[in-house]
Amino acid sequence: MAATAQNSACDLILFGTKGDLARRKLLPAMYQLEKANLFCVDSRIIGVARDELSTEEYTELVLTNLNKFLKEPLDNEVWQRLQKKLTYVQLDLTNEQDYQKLADVTNCNKRVPVSYFATPPSLFGAICKGLASAGLATGPARVVLEKPIGHDLASSKIINDQVAEFYDESQIYRIDHYLGKETVLNLLALRFANAIFASNWDHNSIDHVQITVAEEVGVEGRWSYYDDAGQMRDMVQNHLLQVLTLIAMEPPARLDADSIRDEKLKVLKALRKIDLSNIQEKTVRGQYASGFVAGKAAPGYLEEDGARLNSRTETFVAIKVDIDNWRWAGVPFYLRTGKRMASKLSEVVISFKPQPHNIFHATYSHLPANKLIIRLQPDEGVEIQVLNKIPGLGETMRLQESKLDLSFDETFKSQRIADAYERLLLEAMLGNQYLFVRRDEVEHAWRWIDGILDAWKINNEPPKSYQAGSWGPVAAISLLARDDRNWEE
Amino acid sequence: MAATAQNSACDLILFGTKGDLARRKLLPAMYQLEKANLFCVDSRIIGVARDELSTEEYTELVLTNLNKFLKEPLDNEVWQRLQKKLTYVQLDLTNEQDYQKLADVTNCNKRVPVSYFATPPSLFGAICKGLASAGLATGPARVVLEKPIGHDLASSKIINDQVAEFYDESQIYRIDHYLGKETVLNLLALRFANAIFASNWDHNSIDHVQITVAEEVGVEGRWSYYDDAGQMRDMVQNHLLQVLTLIAMEPPARLDADSIRDEKLKVLKALRKIDLSNIQEKTVRGQYASGFVAGKAAPGYLEEDGARLNSRTETFVAIKVDIDNWRWAGVPFYLRTGKRMASKLSEVVISFKPQPHNIFHATYSHLPANKLIIRLQPDEGVEIQVLNKIPGLGETMRLQESKLDLSFDETFKSQRIADAYERLLLEAMLGNQYLFVRRDEVEHAWRWIDGILDAWKINNEPPKSYQAGSWGPVAAISLLARDDRNWEE
Repeated sequence: MAATAQNSACDLILFGTKGDLARRKLLPAMYQLEKANLFCVDSRIIGVARDELSTEEYTELVLTNLNKFLKEPLDNEVWQRLQKKLTYVQLDLTNEQDYQKLADVTNCNKRVPVSYFATPPSLFGAICKGLASAGLATGPARVVLEKPIGHDLASSKIINDQVAEFYDESQIYRIDHYLGKETVLNLLALRFANAIFASNWDHNSIDHVQITVAEEVGVEGRWSYYDDAGQMRDMVQNHLLQVLTLIAMEPPARLDADSIRDEKLKVLKALRKIDLSNIQEKTVRGQYASGFVAGKAAPGYLEEDGARLNSRTETFVAIKVDIDNWRWAGVPFYLRTGKRMASKLSEVVISFKPQPHNIFHATYSHLPANKLIIRLQPDEGVEIQVLNKIPGLGETMRLQESKLDLSFDETFKSQRIADAYERLLLEAMLGNQYLFVRRDEVEHAWRWIDGILDAWKINNEPPKSYQAGSWGPVAAISLLARDDRNWEE
Repeated sequence: MAATAQNSACDLILFGTKGDLARRKLLPAMYQLEKANLFCVDSRIIGVARDELSTEEYTELVLTNLNKFLKEPLDNEVWQRLQKKLTYVQLDLTNEQDYQKLADVTNCNKRVPVSYFATPPSLFGAICKGLASAGLATGPARVVLEKPIGHDLASSKIINDQVAEFYDESQIYRIDHYLGKETVLNLLALRFANAIFASNWDHNSIDHVQITVAEEVGVEGRWSYYDDAGQMRDMVQNHLLQVLTLIAMEPPARLDADSIRDEKLKVLKALRKIDLSNIQEKTVRGQYASGFVAGKAAPGYLEEDGARLNSRTETFVAIKVDIDNWRWAGVPFYLRTGKRMASKLSEVVISFKPQPHNIFHATYSHLPANKLIIRLQPDEGVEIQVLNKIPGLGETMRLQESKLDLSFDETFKSQRIADAYERLLLEAMLGNQYLFVRRDEVEHAWRWIDGILDAWKINNEPPKSYQAGSWGPVAAISLLARDDRNWEE
């Protein structure tokens, strides 16, 4: 029987509890789980950081954070339940002896130790070693790892090896928070619960796929990390490739973790290599210049506070991805993602093949293709673009593209849309791995991304400039125009 | 070049101008065409009836009718334009000499004579003969015939022969007003402009089709006609079979009249015969008993004013139709139509095949099939029923049927939905036959209907009783239940 919230008592050990991720996302997520009665009553939350704090002081700090970052007024009754779970442990993460303190506050016989690493990955090895020495790596113990797991294949292997020294793959939960989004999960429902989509889901019916993840924000002061990483490592290697695998994978026989991850892995293995021979044809690198975003002047990347002189880091990437397998032969997947774009928008557009024959040519010389649009954020929803007859007495058949629309907000009015971290925390505590990324997925993603990064490095071209508030460099438009296609607007 | 409203001057000769159809439908339709500037400025309307009336008196009568039956206030400017077109001619339809009066008020050199027969079909022969003797049957002259064209194959042949004596098939426009409905025309757009439907439109993807035409009204005092005809002749032979052919036909190569009608005919020829051997299995006959419709008490058919004692006429029909061709093998089309049903509703439901494998069985043991629902009236529109994930943190994947919806009213807010007769009058004046029924269609429809009527007659069973305000006899539910299916509610 699958674990349920009722029989899954955990010692949730939160490394990096004072960090940004914990404050903005993880603590509010725990509150929401408590509110929804999905947090086992016997579970404990053990905040870990370097600072000397009493549990009372820590509790006070959590309360302050919740009041700041919850998107709703704090419910005192929920808080009373949650705060009883809190314990604070001061720890020098690099001092193995210190971890003994965790052994004192946990109880492996009664609760599963679930350690959440909201810390830089350079510390993952030390933490694992410490946890193991405290007896918190055996049996059902789990670790939850935040990205980035390395900045290329080699460095990701080092990190994964460090963790693997103490934990089996079945104990490791690698977070990609896109996998916790309701609309991303709905991809599984749409594809596999609906015959009208399932039977059309291949090169016979689909012309091409577009995946867009556009941000309005710029670098937001994350210079030390972002300027080394760039948009490719920060967004494509994880989020965009994860969405791509969910769209492209063969139907898994079951919904369990390895059935799904086996299929996702096959997609990653089938990605056509991009290297020096085709880098110009397949990719576009961009960097934002000054402009206007949402009506406000925005500085260029190199003019931001703390900018590194002459940085050539890309803040925009567009890629034409070919998947060399039976299902997707000849069907390109166009990816694009960037900062300081025209609007905040994540969506998947499935463009179906046009009708082979047009009997409406008198009024519509070029029938637009049907599209299935899956809006991941904001305004989560699903729509199908179809052609209908325009009512009216004109002498000929006039057609118009119209939308069959399903807005999550409207359809599921009574349902709060849970944040991705709520779901992922819950699944980690329940021991369900299907929304977490397996090591071989991470490594195959890096292998493919490294090919592009290497080719860019050898090529040594500066990123193409684009105005803040636009949809990226002109070259991204040409990438599709060469194939006689356009980005969805 | 196709005729346009600008170069299609007609003498529109309206036989039966004082009848119900003319008053309620045809005259208001002419007004709307005038309002939309689709009525050629040089056209004339010649009202014909037995009564002695001056053109002035006739004009006054038309105005009274418009004020009564228009669904909007009369626009005087439009009326001024329309009334200039009106002429009245008194005529004894059975007196050939009388038709000479029409020759005097028409002008075949300048205007095409378009004669609209809004009279009982028993007069069609006499009218044709009279028109011919007045020189109004030659060249581009056209006749527009209202149903019913006969009450079986033999009688329809007689009527068609009478008309054919004077008019070529290319001059004959047989009305089925369902073919003028916006939503029925939209079937062509949906099927042939949208690859996602076109590629799914056969026995591989579709499980079955339902066509419902339900009325709230009862016999409405039309005893002398209706009790002889019954619901089968009144609705199935024409409207339901026409809708069925548009759903089922192969894609025509062009939109012209014979390309479409050739394909419709092929469907009618492929209908599996229903006779004594399978009548019980394939059909249900019903007659309404008293009940409540829309909250009001309604008498049974036999209790209506003027009811014929012990009439066994059916007011409800349900049929399981098999189409024996490559596209539809094994895909039943279920038809049902009746008076005094639960609500006024015409719709087509395309039920797709279920998914072959269910990976959501933990939460949804029986995945509902996708449906494409085309609402013909009221609230015209198109919707697709799909399964989506219900947002929420439950421990498993919960799915919900939801609708991708397109309401004509909402989508085409600025567009008035034209009445079917406006379009059909316009097309007849333009000389476009594609929305009119060809003789071979009428005859093949009758041939198939006669098989059922004959079997019912031999069987000699009384119709099954159903409560007014219900969805018909229980047997209509069993008709689908035997196939493990249900009517769409």
